[in-house]
Amino acid sequence: MSELNQPLGGNVMPRTGGPGTMMRLPTQPTAEGLDACFVGIPMDIGTSNRPGTRLGPRQIRDESRMIRPYNMATRAAPFDSLQVADIGDVPINLYDLKKSVDIITEHYKGILSHDVVPLTLGGDHTLTWPVLRAIAAKHGPVALIHVDAHSDTNEEMFGETVAHGCPFRRAYEDGLLLNDKVFQIGLRGSGYAPEDFDWGREKGWTVIPAEECWHKSLAPLMEEIRAKIGDAPVYLSYDIDSLDPAFAPGTGTVEVGGLTTIQGLEIIRGCAGLNLVGCDLVEVSPPYDPAGNTAVIAANYLFEMLCALPGVKRG
Amino acid sequence: MSELNQPLGGNVMPRTGGPGTMMRLPTQPTAEGLDACFVGIPMDIGTSNRPGTRLGPRQIRDESRMIRPYNMATRAAPFDSLQVADIGDVPINLYDLKKSVDIITEHYKGILSHDVVPLTLGGDHTLTWPVLRAIAAKHGPVALIHVDAHSDTNEEMFGETVAHGCPFRRAYEDGLLLNDKVFQIGLRGSGYAPEDFDWGREKGWTVIPAEECWHKSLAPLMEEIRAKIGDAPVYLSYDIDSLDPAFAPGTGTVEVGGLTTIQGLEIIRGCAGLNLVGCDLVEVSPPYDPAGNTAVIAANYLFEMLCALPGVKRG
Amino acid sequence: MSELNQPLGGNVMPRTGGPGTMMRLPTQPTAEGLDACFVGIPMDIGTSNRPGTRLGPRQIRDESRMIRPYNMATRAAPFDSLQVADIGDVPINLYDLKKSVDIITEHYKGILSHDVVPLTLGGDHTLTWPVLRAIAAKHGPVALIHVDAHSDTNEEMFGETVAHGCPFRRAYEDGLLLNDKVFQIGLRGSGYAPEDFDWGREKGWTVIPAEECWHKSLAPLMEEIRAKIGDAPVYLSYDIDSLDPAFAPGTGTVEVGGLTTIQGLEIIRGCAGLNLVGCDLVEVSPPYDPAGNTAVIAANYLFEMLCALPGVKRG
Amino acid sequence: MSELNQPLGGNVMPRTGGPGTMMRLPTQPTAEGLDACFVGIPMDIGTSNRPGTRLGPRQIRDESRMIRPYNMATRAAPFDSLQVADIGDVPINLYDLKKSVDIITEHYKGILSHDVVPLTLGGDHTLTWPVLRAIAAKHGPVALIHVDAHSDTNEEMFGETVAHGCPFRRAYEDGLLLNDKVFQIGLRGSGYAPEDFDWGREKGWTVIPAEECWHKSLAPLMEEIRAKIGDAPVYLSYDIDSLDPAFAPGTGTVEVGGLTTIQGLEIIRGCAGLNLVGCDLVEVSPPYDPAGNTAVIAANYLFEMLCALPGVKRG
Amino acid sequence: MSELNQPLGGNVMPRTGGPGTMMRLPTQPTAEGLDACFVGIPMDIGTSNRPGTRLGPRQIRDESRMIRPYNMATRAAPFDSLQVADIGDVPINLYDLKKSVDIITEHYKGILSHDVVPLTLGGDHTLTWPVLRAIAAKHGPVALIHVDAHSDTNEEMFGETVAHGCPFRRAYEDGLLLNDKVFQIGLRGSGYAPEDFDWGREKGWTVIPAEECWHKSLAPLMEEIRAKIGDAPVYLSYDIDSLDPAFAPGTGTVEVGGLTTIQGLEIIRGCAGLNLVGCDLVEVSPPYDPAGNTAVIAANYLFEMLCALPGVKRG
Amino acid sequence: MSELNQPLGGNVMPRTGGPGTMMRLPTQPTAEGLDACFVGIPMDIGTSNRPGTRLGPRQIRDESRMIRPYNMATRAAPFDSLQVADIGDVPINLYDLKKSVDIITEHYKGILSHDVVPLTLGGDHTLTWPVLRAIAAKHGPVALIHVDAHSDTNEEMFGETVAHGCPFRRAYEDGLLLNDKVFQIGLRGSGYAPEDFDWGREKGWTVIPAEECWHKSLAPLMEEIRAKIGDAPVYLSYDIDSLDPAFAPGTGTVEVGGLTTIQGLEIIRGCAGLNLVGCDLVEVSPPYDPAGNTAVIAANYLFEMLCALPGVKRG
Repeated sequence: MSELNQPLGGNVMPRTGGPGTMMRLPTQPTAEGLDACFVGIPMDIGTSNRPGTRLGPRQIRDESRMIRPYNMATRAAPFDSLQVADIGDVPINLYDLKKSVDIITEHYKGILSHDVVPLTLGGDHTLTWPVLRAIAAKHGPVALIHVDAHSDTNEEMFGETVAHGCPFRRAYEDGLLLNDKVFQIGLRGSGYAPEDFDWGREKGWTVIPAEECWHKSLAPLMEEIRAKIGDAPVYLSYDIDSLDPAFAPGTGTVEVGGLTTIQGLEIIRGCAGLNLVGCDLVEVSPPYDPAGNTAVIAANYLFEMLCALPGVKRG
Repeated sequence: MSELNQPLGGNVMPRTGGPGTMMRLPTQPTAEGLDACFVGIPMDIGTSNRPGTRLGPRQIRDESRMIRPYNMATRAAPFDSLQVADIGDVPINLYDLKKSVDIITEHYKGILSHDVVPLTLGGDHTLTWPVLRAIAAKHGPVALIHVDAHSDTNEEMFGETVAHGCPFRRAYEDGLLLNDKVFQIGLRGSGYAPEDFDWGREKGWTVIPAEECWHKSLAPLMEEIRAKIGDAPVYLSYDIDSLDPAFAPGTGTVEVGGLTTIQGLEIIRGCAGLNLVGCDLVEVSPPYDPAGNTAVIAANYLFEMLCALPGVKRG
Repeated sequence: MSELNQPLGGNVMPRTGGPGTMMRLPTQPTAEGLDACFVGIPMDIGTSNRPGTRLGPRQIRDESRMIRPYNMATRAAPFDSLQVADIGDVPINLYDLKKSVDIITEHYKGILSHDVVPLTLGGDHTLTWPVLRAIAAKHGPVALIHVDAHSDTNEEMFGETVAHGCPFRRAYEDGLLLNDKVFQIGLRGSGYAPEDFDWGREKGWTVIPAEECWHKSLAPLMEEIRAKIGDAPVYLSYDIDSLDPAFAPGTGTVEVGGLTTIQGLEIIRGCAGLNLVGCDLVEVSPPYDPAGNTAVIAANYLFEMLCALPGVKRG
Repeated sequence: MSELNQPLGGNVMPRTGGPGTMMRLPTQPTAEGLDACFVGIPMDIGTSNRPGTRLGPRQIRDESRMIRPYNMATRAAPFDSLQVADIGDVPINLYDLKKSVDIITEHYKGILSHDVVPLTLGGDHTLTWPVLRAIAAKHGPVALIHVDAHSDTNEEMFGETVAHGCPFRRAYEDGLLLNDKVFQIGLRGSGYAPEDFDWGREKGWTVIPAEECWHKSLAPLMEEIRAKIGDAPVYLSYDIDSLDPAFAPGTGTVEVGGLTTIQGLEIIRGCAGLNLVGCDLVEVSPPYDPAGNTAVIAANYLFEMLCALPGVKRG
Repeated sequence: MSELNQPLGGNVMPRTGGPGTMMRLPTQPTAEGLDACFVGIPMDIGTSNRPGTRLGPRQIRDESRMIRPYNMATRAAPFDSLQVADIGDVPINLYDLKKSVDIITEHYKGILSHDVVPLTLGGDHTLTWPVLRAIAAKHGPVALIHVDAHSDTNEEMFGETVAHGCPFRRAYEDGLLLNDKVFQIGLRGSGYAPEDFDWGREKGWTVIPAEECWHKSLAPLMEEIRAKIGDAPVYLSYDIDSLDPAFAPGTGTVEVGGLTTIQGLEIIRGCAGLNLVGCDLVEVSPPYDPAGNTAVIAANYLFEMLCALPGVKRG
Repeated sequence: MSELNQPLGGNVMPRTGGPGTMMRLPTQPTAEGLDACFVGIPMDIGTSNRPGTRLGPRQIRDESRMIRPYNMATRAAPFDSLQVADIGDVPINLYDLKKSVDIITEHYKGILSHDVVPLTLGGDHTLTWPVLRAIAAKHGPVALIHVDAHSDTNEEMFGETVAHGCPFRRAYEDGLLLNDKVFQIGLRGSGYAPEDFDWGREKGWTVIPAEECWHKSLAPLMEEIRAKIGDAPVYLSYDIDSLDPAFAPGTGTVEVGGLTTIQGLEIIRGCAGLNLVGCDLVEVSPPYDPAGNTAVIAANYLFEMLCALPGVKRG
């Protein structure tokens, strides 16, 4: 066990120092030998409104420095079970979104040539489509738990099919999803037409608008979802704007009346027991939360995703 | 139908560009031909603590740029039913509050010479009194739904009768209200004496302190209120400080333990079916929320008010 | 009654002016003649992550300027019952934490040579240990209501026994606590091992993690706690990071999924009837909330503590 | 000498604690027995653009906490020569500018019933007119050194004669100034017509636009000014917006291309030897500089004014 | 003369209200009938480091609200000489930089079908290339005054030829420039090789690094430049990052040791007398200066450009 | 040459991604094989006023991401001449300043067991004393170029001899300095007595107050200093508060009227040719400049120090 990577502890180096990696973990250039890896995608050129997510991975890593290795609530001790490292960033092309999408898929195919679960630090939501292409190339079509304020199933934006409002429509078209096991949680706000949310429903997806989440625990919902997904491979895509802006001001397309961080924790913790094959946390925009608390949430959620992975022991 | 004004869409002009009007709607100098209009009052000289609401209309308009025309939750499509425009700001006198109050009343009488529902972007809460004078001049005394942390029924402040803590006392004195149909929701915090909240009760008003709203949906409350108001003309005055400062940091007299934005949505959506004749959203102070999310809430709430107006179809 | 100190009122001096004392109360150099006193400890050198609490007392006092003397919810009128003043700050040594700890104890012994309840404006949580030493020197071991994201019962941090993660372990070792009447509310997040929370349980303490508080009122919990404490002397230590960072961004070691300000109010108001002998509000870090709303909460919570003290009449 | 008030030193109380008074000086309610006094005017309702100066005195006092008693550059030791205190704020009426103007004059007449030099912490520039009325009532018409981006000699603003763009025109009309000894330094930017700056010239005033100050020391200018003023009583009115916004972002009507803080120091230090009878530092708007460095400048400039007063020894 | 558009004055509408157009000018959809026009390009997808310039035009317009119509320093009264309006934004494609570049050229060809001088509010610096294509299509190759921290003559960035570091190399390749009349002012910082600045020199351009500008007025430099340019058509491209970050924090690729705003004014005012056929002000990134002073500079510089245009009378 | 470490280039990985090391250089645990190394000291517990420098090294590294390898002004190409890496942080004890001081000395003795020049990212200025102890242990007493607003030669602060106002007095007492080759540049502001600056003069040091630097280039001064130092080993200690707060708002004890960044560049570039054996850049406090431009200056200054080291070729 002593050979497993451990986050650098606060009694060895002050929390305000140490490496700028996720949870102050060791870094390595590839996913070789890892059970799970953190990887960043410093991109925001798929964004429609406020930019800034290109700096998301940097701030999430920075603000992950306080996280300790043991999950007090779930009793998960992921670093006692899994070999984990931070494998750095995807060298996307900031001037060409379409090329970046292909760079991402190729990069993840490289990662997934190892038997590893990638945990992605976004980056705008466009990235989930190319990640899913690599995921499905390895695992076949997957179940999807998609937490978001928006359905991200636009046919196109400003005439483009690649943008942060479109990834799940592209994933559907590419046959990357198990359509009876797709769950979209937290959708809300204004739109262009009922079809904005109904498009997925017509494909067999389950849409749970924010309004159905208000004033209650989401633990029962997750129980249902786990039952429906069973042991299919699952991808978890968590858009920080699913949260109400009170919790997550540092994002680009805020919508009023969203989830609480408690509900977010219930969702992620509720994924434990599923066959998670990949996760992402997207749309953290540092310029809109210089104090960094949005990134603190993101960092903790990524840690909670790690804690929910198959094979993690509970102490 | 194609003659109705539409917000400039995000597929025609990036959300970060386009006119600085409410929802990127067309602007016109008067309310002529409109069913509803957005109007700003760039004033803060009635404020007792932190200033800044003089810039509220500018920031609300700016942050309204992301709102799309269809309400996903209520299925309201206001721009398919009503002719709406942004008619600009009231030229108030920033150096003389008493003169500004009269300027506002006159300006609204001009607006209300047309058959239009004004949706006001504040501005400090002093403005509701002069607006109500014009409203009552047209519609007679009105029912009132007043959402706020404060009762705003002070006899005077610093010896003055015109200030942002006094508008509803002045409105009462002027006979502008249907006293058995006045509802104050969200009151809380510290005061000078029990009379701060009881004064209205003695006049027949219904006071629902924040404590009675905690931990629950306000949909049942709104059902009751709708029943009591019936088809009387109603004015909705929404002070953003009714919300807990976690949601709305950008305001001047914050009080702890307030409403959630979800409850705010329940209140405004719960006004659908009423005979709304005017609405305001006041006390947004941009300097205290430079990231602009308080204004995002305000902009969305104004859109929700528009969706709740009589005559709006649900798609 | 007219001899009791009163906060300077908003009709005598604008809220944006007046003395920079707590609630614009008079100040005096000692606690002589007082029933309750506000005292600041401008310290942050016990902090492990983000600093800044050395400026907490200044910002809390500044943002207390809006609080009026009467509690609308509980009907408490503390300034009609108690003689209260702001007695300034403890002259701690910012370059030597261990010396500061002794300075604090001595300073509070001086305060407690008078028959007064000290309400402390922190400052980092290290301070509660030396304050409790003085409290127990006067009152004997006390019951403790400790609201926090962290248990603060570390054996040591970076090899040191004096730090903001250790005060309650030190207090236990010094025999300052009635171990069957110790309640820790709101604990959560990541840690090093189950012992982080279980250590106190082994000593007879009651630990209520944040997860047990989610989605509900804490009034019933406080009823239980009051029953268990009875008429023992009680100390209330309120760490602002018990709140979710959405409410209190201005603190140093934020943890996701915390209490709401409403629950905080329920806890403090739920202390009324207890024999409170001291209270503190710690860990407000102004640089992380320049707009000051975290300090507004802190100031209001300190006012609510004052309202909950023995002997305060309800109007 | 030991009877003279001293600022609370940093070796007695941490700089981050201590009283919220100017330079942590003692406070007293009147100017009795003082040679110089600091007084605040928490007002911004004479402001045309960004508000916030109502909080200026609070932030200036807060950020004065680091200033030590001896001037390293000029070798002035004001607290060895003068009895100085902070006498608090003027209770202006935030809802009525015209009343506030009269309150200020009356308040300063009370101050000036003692033989004291008032150093005013603003507040918007409207205040200089009513202060000058009291100054001239005691000293007769005065010489004026007015440092500003704007001439503040408007006939009226929005039809009003009392506003922050008008004080020096009002002072002229009231005969408060020695017109051949009036100097306006730093004027610049856009205007309505050449008369904006020429009006004063026609009255005999000397106008030194910012452009004449660029790229050079202002020490020679001050030498000229001292020669022209001789031993006439002088009032120094320093608007922080005279500085380029790079130095002083925290103000309301910023103009590009202004003075440097070095030039500001040269101006104030260049006043030593003059018969200064009053000084003000106006237009600091805290919401536009939350980090507080604009207020640090203001606090230091007020200290430099104190150092330049008649009777201050140089060590 | 009375038919010329005028900015909405501050005595008619408070500066904090009124339309969100440049200087509160009227808006019209095309450049028809105009002598000069303001036009925005809300783009940042050509940016290499910090994003945000997509919001530049909105913030520049917002912060232009204080500018009055007359230039106190140069005595220019542009609105007495020219017909000017704000013609809104270019509908660029935020998801495809290469398409946006063509959209911009086409849009400017439309503008330049009228006899008008476009003053562009950026937007990242990529835009200057497509604007110059339209400019040269009308006027032939032009002289260039390019004020910037960077030469922006990269062969490519990340393999791309269209990016904000490349516009002037592209313009050279397209033959848009009079190479003996190209001036690059303010270049500095780190690079990859001497060629970064020497490339232009080899083409006949004059490069004036920041170091040659330090500690002095740039008026003599502009005199030289005017002599060299003569009556050739000139384009002025002003990158706000030419300024030291002390002045202009709100930009994406800050370099230490830059120009002062005074020098910037000297450059722009020094363009009077030239045959200016177009100007831009680029790289203002609002998220990095929420207080807005960088945009205030930008707005004033655009006004100064307008004042320097051919045909503007001096009063 | 190809074996020398190179910063990760912007054409290989977007500037917003890549490792969080200084200039995106490789990292290694010790200084073995290096000619120069960057090392961080994440400490602020020696600070008297605003805290935050504990996060300085993190933000400096983050904001160094834009720096390219070649110095356009000096033509230095340090990575073609020297082997350089980032060797991480010193594990200081955040709860005990005196212990931290000894940890630092021991750590630097370890670094200096290799033939390397350490470039330190602070951290508060206390650190220079323990660093100098290690430097002098290797090199003997050194010449010192100390750029600062403060002399930092206090006998003690609050009774303590170890604090950020004392390092150079301690260094003198320990015989670490060549007293005829000590230069303090930029001192200014308020103090306790003339001795604050004269103490060093009495020891043979040269003190150049800020006032002597105003309005001019510091290149001539550096020429003099180089002549006086000759080939003695030199240590350069650069306190970011030497700069005027307009340039460097992100620091703890700001003083008005400081150096410009241009003068700072002149000083550091003026060190080329000296026998520099160590450098530090201290007192960057991220919470007071969230946009990060103070850290950008610091990062560039550290790069300029690297460029000025002995053995660096100029291209």
